Amino acid sequence: MDLVERGLAGERLAIARLLTQVENDTPAGQKALDRLFPHSGKAHLVGITGAPGTGKSSLANRLALALRAESGAKVAVLAVDPSSPFSGGALLGDRLRMKEAASDPDIFIRSMASRGTLGGLARTTAGAAQVLDAVGFGWILIETVGAGQSEVDVARLAHTVIVVDAPGLGDDIQAIKAGILEIADILVVNKADLEGAENTLRALRAMLEMAYPERHSDSGNKMERWQPILLSAVATTGEGIFDLTKAVRQHARYLQESGGWKHREAERLRREFELLVRDRLWEQWKERVGVKQLHKISEMIAQREISPQRALADWGDIPKNDEHD
Amino acid sequence: MDLVERGLAGERLAIARLLTQVENDTPAGQKALDRLFPHSGKAHLVGITGAPGTGKSSLANRLALALRAESGAKVAVLAVDPSSPFSGGALLGDRLRMKEAASDPDIFIRSMASRGTLGGLARTTAGAAQVLDAVGFGWILIETVGAGQSEVDVARLAHTVIVVDAPGLGDDIQAIKAGILEIADILVVNKADLEGAENTLRALRAMLEMAYPERHSDSGNKMERWQPILLSAVATTGEGIFDLTKAVRQHARYLQESGGWKHREAERLRREFELLVRDRLWEQWKERVGVKQLHKISEMIAQREISPQRALADWGDIPKNDEHD
Repeated sequence: MDLVERGLAGERLAIARLLTQVENDTPAGQKALDRLFPHSGKAHLVGITGAPGTGKSSLANRLALALRAESGAKVAVLAVDPSSPFSGGALLGDRLRMKEAASDPDIFIRSMASRGTLGGLARTTAGAAQVLDAVGFGWILIETVGAGQSEVDVARLAHTVIVVDAPGLGDDIQAIKAGILEIADILVVNKADLEGAENTLRALRAMLEMAYPERHSDSGNKMERWQPILLSAVATTGEGIFDLTKAVRQHARYLQESGGWKHREAERLRREFELLVRDRLWEQWKERVGVKQLHKISEMIAQREISPQRALADWGDIPKNDEHD
Repeated sequence: MDLVERGLAGERLAIARLLTQVENDTPAGQKALDRLFPHSGKAHLVGITGAPGTGKSSLANRLALALRAESGAKVAVLAVDPSSPFSGGALLGDRLRMKEAASDPDIFIRSMASRGTLGGLARTTAGAAQVLDAVGFGWILIETVGAGQSEVDVARLAHTVIVVDAPGLGDDIQAIKAGILEIADILVVNKADLEGAENTLRALRAMLEMAYPERHSDSGNKMERWQPILLSAVATTGEGIFDLTKAVRQHARYLQESGGWKHREAERLRREFELLVRDRLWEQWKERVGVKQLHKISEMIAQREISPQRALADWGDIPKNDEHD
């Protein structure tokens, strides 16, 4: 049996190797993804995002255990880290903090490291999720550190997005909240045992009421758009985790019944394809223009002989002749 | 006089309009950037990044005032926000918190909003910095909210990068620290009057000592690589701001003397050009393939008839015939 077949048979080591191929973006990895693709499309992907300090990792840990226990399906966790200059990859920290879930043989945990290319992280994470989906993980949790655009991109790869908040994270967190509220299906105030948790809950509720005024209309329409669920939790003690898994399953069911699942799945795949094409185009453009010419262009820009905009007009086009026409 | 000429003459309203054109990525904005480019290349760009809750905005506010006072040069602040679904753009919060600096006519403050395209924010921020540079701002502070990959991308557009930390931000912030330590020229522990500040300083110092062991060798080589400066500050009271401006000016001088400035400037412009080309290639590819065909491809992928990898192989290439050859 080759690696793909062994992966499909559920062999852990093979799965780990497939993930490494995908993460390193090797031709073998691309080929494996192509072969695994027909087996995918069954997993439910859950994105977990929010600012640092909110305790996302602990929450992901607990959620993995609870989903595993309740549904009987296998659970995978993808922890998406900024790359560390020290470890040359993802930090050990997340794995340590997840040791509880890691001791369960039906829970698979993997840290993804950014390789520094634009959009590269979202693309390799999508590939990793596809591998795990194909080899039979029913739930795939994608945990992102931070709350910037690239984290939002990663979260958009999921079917259900959990945004985690916590009390006492200061002032400028408000900006983050507004930015990612848009993508939240479930909002969790973690560390709810800390002072100020009530205020945080109240502030989020107020924002939700502004964003979803129809929540308060008595339309009685059951197929109306999803209203984000607001919860509180204490991941370290497990408080609120039952409600969280319930909310995740409720959202999954909602997506199935409303047809939203298919829509999100299609959008997810469309984005994945876009990421693939964008990187490929750039690589091919570089090859076409040539290292020497690219160096010359960069030099002229650095000398301010031409602007980046002019250089774009002169060299940035896809050639007009199209052999596909 | 047209808009570009009025901007070059220092007219505030014209500058604001130019920035809007660039932010909205209009053809007029691209043309303006091309015309402004020869006037640029004099400003020193300072990136300020770090996790939410560290008080970056207050620090940027203080730094803007101090640089203005000490150097006599005009100072601009670009606050890079995740887009808000409510305001349709950047939040008012940053501007409010910056009101002190905003009342100085020689300090220009602008919030940049992400338009949601991959890499789009870094690109429009680079454009905005180019406008401000060309119209005579000597210092341009680029403040990013968050610490994810896209924020790091934005920070890399700067000559000097300040990473802000604060005590008591919890556990998973450690992962962030390691990830952005790599790009820090200056590290500031803000809120140094809070409990735990000493621990945060100690932890950062230990990380720096690991990353820069040569700091402890007595090589006596003055042109050795830059050793990040570690500082503490209390932005709300202004404590430590003098040391911070000193460090920023010291780094700027170091870059000039070591030739590093030219190197960073070239790298900055190379990245800006890459962002431009990537977006252009994608736009042109979409046009070439056509909306209908793209829809068909997406449909086939969604139906799992072909994998994204196969679709990439079939449609993702730049056509072989190259009219530039």
